[in-house]
Amino acid sequence: MESFAKRVIDKVRQFGPLVVGLDPHFDSLPPFLLQRFMPCRTSLEGLAEAVFAFGAELLEVLSGEVGFIKIQLAFYEALGVPGMQVLSETLRLARSRGFLVILDGKRNDIASSATLYAQGYLSGIKVGNTVLPSFWDGDALTVNPYFGEDGLRPFFEEAYQSGKGLFVLARTSNPSAPFIQDEGQNKRVFEKVASLVDTMRKEFPEDSPISSFGIVVGATYSEDLRYLRELFPSLPFLIPGVGVQGGEIEKVRSAFLPGGLGALVNVSRDILFAYRKGGKEKGEDFAERALDQVRKYQKILRSIAP
Amino acid sequence: MESFAKRVIDKVRQFGPLVVGLDPHFDSLPPFLLQRFMPCRTSLEGLAEAVFAFGAELLEVLSGEVGFIKIQLAFYEALGVPGMQVLSETLRLARSRGFLVILDGKRNDIASSATLYAQGYLSGIKVGNTVLPSFWDGDALTVNPYFGEDGLRPFFEEAYQSGKGLFVLARTSNPSAPFIQDEGQNKRVFEKVASLVDTMRKEFPEDSPISSFGIVVGATYSEDLRYLRELFPSLPFLIPGVGVQGGEIEKVRSAFLPGGLGALVNVSRDILFAYRKGGKEKGEDFAERALDQVRKYQKILRSIAP
Repeated sequence: MESFAKRVIDKVRQFGPLVVGLDPHFDSLPPFLLQRFMPCRTSLEGLAEAVFAFGAELLEVLSGEVGFIKIQLAFYEALGVPGMQVLSETLRLARSRGFLVILDGKRNDIASSATLYAQGYLSGIKVGNTVLPSFWDGDALTVNPYFGEDGLRPFFEEAYQSGKGLFVLARTSNPSAPFIQDEGQNKRVFEKVASLVDTMRKEFPEDSPISSFGIVVGATYSEDLRYLRELFPSLPFLIPGVGVQGGEIEKVRSAFLPGGLGALVNVSRDILFAYRKGGKEKGEDFAERALDQVRKYQKILRSIAP
Repeated sequence: MESFAKRVIDKVRQFGPLVVGLDPHFDSLPPFLLQRFMPCRTSLEGLAEAVFAFGAELLEVLSGEVGFIKIQLAFYEALGVPGMQVLSETLRLARSRGFLVILDGKRNDIASSATLYAQGYLSGIKVGNTVLPSFWDGDALTVNPYFGEDGLRPFFEEAYQSGKGLFVLARTSNPSAPFIQDEGQNKRVFEKVASLVDTMRKEFPEDSPISSFGIVVGATYSEDLRYLRELFPSLPFLIPGVGVQGGEIEKVRSAFLPGGLGALVNVSRDILFAYRKGGKEKGEDFAERALDQVRKYQKILRSIAP
């Protein structure tokens, strides 16, 4: 398969660098969906159906408008087997509509278990001499670096073999990110992680100006974003934290390389739940309100990442 | 519900501190199971059935012998929806046989998503004024501290409300653990994490000599284990890394408090796949060989944690 990096470049050229984060916060789902699928509010199955309907309508309306979807696994796992079934159907739909899908799972473990996460979410299960195709089959996965290099390596190897991508948490978007990430004798941890990813990606060379392996840097730390871009001029960034979390989209400007490449900018709640600010009361127009927000963000991104 | 801490104490008194880690490495499953459930080696469903049969027989044989099971989620997630279905059945079986179940997922995210992991795996989904019971309903969950305090807080709150437990990664058992975990201007990261957990647990007081909130410390770093125990005299430890990973069980002695409390010691592959060292060729006796190993480890643990 063509590398993740190349597929990213194609999508950015077509639709720009906006990623829509599918974080279906249950209490923020449009009331008409909750009423339809769980009238008595007493079943995980009903809630899972509402989550599916929400994602499915959104994907239909955003198809041909946005290149990237980031799916927050927590919401689907929380709903048990019904949630995972719905995740599977949502992924099938996203692929059929041409979205590149970033699975946001922040997975991590010692190498022998990390291998299974990487195989399951990206590459395919090796058993004996057989490879069983990846059930989840994401285009990329977010991973957590707390285990260091040997915990990250299986993710790189499996992703590379299968033309998939990775985004390793470096500087997260939340207020207490500095607790661990600003520690360090010489370099701070978030910089060490970025440096490690920048080194490791060179072990997995690609025929592309951008790598399939990058880091997560929160828009809420715009000085660190600028600093990391200076240090690592061509490392891909996935940038969450714009909108509800407080990151201003204009401040991600420094992350972009020429041609609008090098950075994907994720917005979740500010798009998903735009209907709550002046849409119809029961949210029947949530997908159209989301599309309006998408276009607003894309316009801003075009102005700062031409 | 009675707190996780109290349930742990009961189990330790009955069976000692051994945790059997259910990490069903596919290539190490007994050949008779792989042949029975996936004769052509071409289906995730068949592999999931083999994984279930493996876990189910093990749980039957270890029932009344061991108090704790740690389930490595990576192996189940890797098998897609069939794997999650099998996880659900395995959990039901483990609960019905009286095991305390530690879900080993190393979950982590910003608070709004971390809440969903905590609710899904431990406490129950809040939507509107309703609480839908946790589908997975583990007794405890492992979590990764890279996001710092605000990413950990929802796990503490949800676990506390529901009488469940947490083990936060401090010093992991793998070779490259020091990359991030040994960084730090004043304290090293793994020590900062331990200190944070020790502080946070005091916000969630329990009527028990031991907390429901502890840390993960690898047996492969026995000096750090001893050091952390000196610093945090009553913090619960979950200790992986014994056996295949190279940690020696005798070296965990320093982790124990009087009465054999304060530390749970996990062994996975060295128990699960004991049949490969001198059992029947096709592994039909894998569960009995596992039980032999369990008794061997329990005997050692009784001698060092009386």
